[in-house]
Amino acid sequence: MYRPEIKVLDCTIRDGGLMNNWRFDKAMVKAVFDGLVKAGVDYVELGYRADKKQFSVDDFGPWRFCDEEDLREVAYDCATKVCVMADVDRTDFNDIIPAKDSIVSLYRVATYVKDMDKAIELGNHCKEQGYAVSVNIMAISHALEQDLDQALEKLAPTNFDYVFVVDSFGNMTPIQIEYTVHKYAAMLPGKEIGIHCHNNQQLAFGNTIEAALKGVTCVDGSVYGIGRAAGNCPLELILGFLNNPKYDVTPVLDLIEEYLAPLKKELKWGYEIPYALTGMLNMHPRPAMKFMKGGHDMSLRAFHEELVDEQDV
Amino acid sequence: MYRPEIKVLDCTIRDGGLMNNWRFDKAMVKAVFDGLVKAGVDYVELGYRADKKQFSVDDFGPWRFCDEEDLREVAYDCATKVCVMADVDRTDFNDIIPAKDSIVSLYRVATYVKDMDKAIELGNHCKEQGYAVSVNIMAISHALEQDLDQALEKLAPTNFDYVFVVDSFGNMTPIQIEYTVHKYAAMLPGKEIGIHCHNNQQLAFGNTIEAALKGVTCVDGSVYGIGRAAGNCPLELILGFLNNPKYDVTPVLDLIEEYLAPLKKELKWGYEIPYALTGMLNMHPRPAMKFMKGGHDMSLRAFHEELVDEQDV
Repeated sequence: MYRPEIKVLDCTIRDGGLMNNWRFDKAMVKAVFDGLVKAGVDYVELGYRADKKQFSVDDFGPWRFCDEEDLREVAYDCATKVCVMADVDRTDFNDIIPAKDSIVSLYRVATYVKDMDKAIELGNHCKEQGYAVSVNIMAISHALEQDLDQALEKLAPTNFDYVFVVDSFGNMTPIQIEYTVHKYAAMLPGKEIGIHCHNNQQLAFGNTIEAALKGVTCVDGSVYGIGRAAGNCPLELILGFLNNPKYDVTPVLDLIEEYLAPLKKELKWGYEIPYALTGMLNMHPRPAMKFMKGGHDMSLRAFHEELVDEQDV
Repeated sequence: MYRPEIKVLDCTIRDGGLMNNWRFDKAMVKAVFDGLVKAGVDYVELGYRADKKQFSVDDFGPWRFCDEEDLREVAYDCATKVCVMADVDRTDFNDIIPAKDSIVSLYRVATYVKDMDKAIELGNHCKEQGYAVSVNIMAISHALEQDLDQALEKLAPTNFDYVFVVDSFGNMTPIQIEYTVHKYAAMLPGKEIGIHCHNNQQLAFGNTIEAALKGVTCVDGSVYGIGRAAGNCPLELILGFLNNPKYDVTPVLDLIEEYLAPLKKELKWGYEIPYALTGMLNMHPRPAMKFMKGGHDMSLRAFHEELVDEQDV
């Protein structure tokens, strides 16, 4: 498929950091940014800009906070733009310096449906500081439709640039992706729609293709699919699919060979039955991550039963 | 999605055997059959019925040949039906005994487009012996459209039961799946259409969903996705998706824990970059399987370049 209006956003460091508390060393992050520049990726998300009053710098690596000087050590001005994520209620507005003084181009505000008013406040602040803004509405597979509709109605009149469909739990199938992308596009005229998938049911790439076919213009991927639990949509597959001469998959192959493949042996993201089960059952991957770390001394069958029991209300 | 007309066919032993020359021990195959019966799976494909004059019994395990007595040691008469695959040019017609004397219900004739006349001859023989018959047209991502159309025209007047869309190289995206399923359905009125996917690009499940939405009524899966190279569509995901009370995923979880997860460590099917690259480039996985076995002393980048060079004509 060749649709040159589609942009690619890499979230290797930001979403991958959920697996190691953002303890990627700078040499690796620098190599990742550099490789992604060579691959022609449009945006690279280097982490969260979290509030240091809420999160101790002793407990996390630098990409939890994305200090300007840390970003400038690994990234540089070029066609590939830097972005960071800012969680509602976990971000100090004062940390968002004017865009002209920052290497960051795009802020992605991460929110739940219920916090949309706060997300808009944070997004407005970013806009006032001169940034492009995306709102990433997480966990929509748990949102009641009327609540989601109301949140989108609030977003419609903002001057934000992107709104992302986010399948946090890896629960959605292409059927839901189509429905949701159509809804966002209809309710948010003038905004670009993006897609961020999790791979619990091996649907991250299929759902990303479905979203691209239905009109999204920004797709998230990560090198070798790194990300929380089952991970994200593998960037290498996206670049192969888009068939746009501006992208080159070979620098991504180098990154996989040198950094991501060894790291996967340690961090173990990817297809695992516990993640598949939380995805199927539309649950947060937390119990599955605990299971994977050996925190549940039980069979897969017993784990499945426990998850099903938790769903009973 | 609940569409009760969709049947599930498990090809764990047949396609998985491509990774170990069908050397599964009988206790395991018996446990797999039994678990799949409990899971409510409709068909279990226990291997190939290959010609012993062409393939030595010393070189392969029993599921390369599927002798009647071997099948009866692991399977039994019940609602779950036994099927076997028969390759064009690799099957002795005399090995296909009358259906009334066999535990086999369904023969799946595997063919390339070019061999469709032979496939029809073999399928007719199976029909005459009293079996249900499927024709599985392999490697269609390499078929010229006019050749495929001609093959389907030949199949249309047969009394075969199924024709399967087979993405042997894991190259197809949902876009091609939709196109192909519509073509088969339009050209083969009265026949059921099936789908068999390979997972090189992590699209086996997404493509299977797309096919199910577009009208196929038989879907192939394998426990934990075992199969050649990147493997097949994971059965556990299919059962979760179909939402049909006749299926139960928990016996499949038991099989994964006891047999397939340990086996995966040894046979290493699943998502690997070399398989992704042959899938993307629409090539047979052979060079990728050699690479995975350490047969290529080169970087991923060099391997990719070699594949791209091979495509030049």
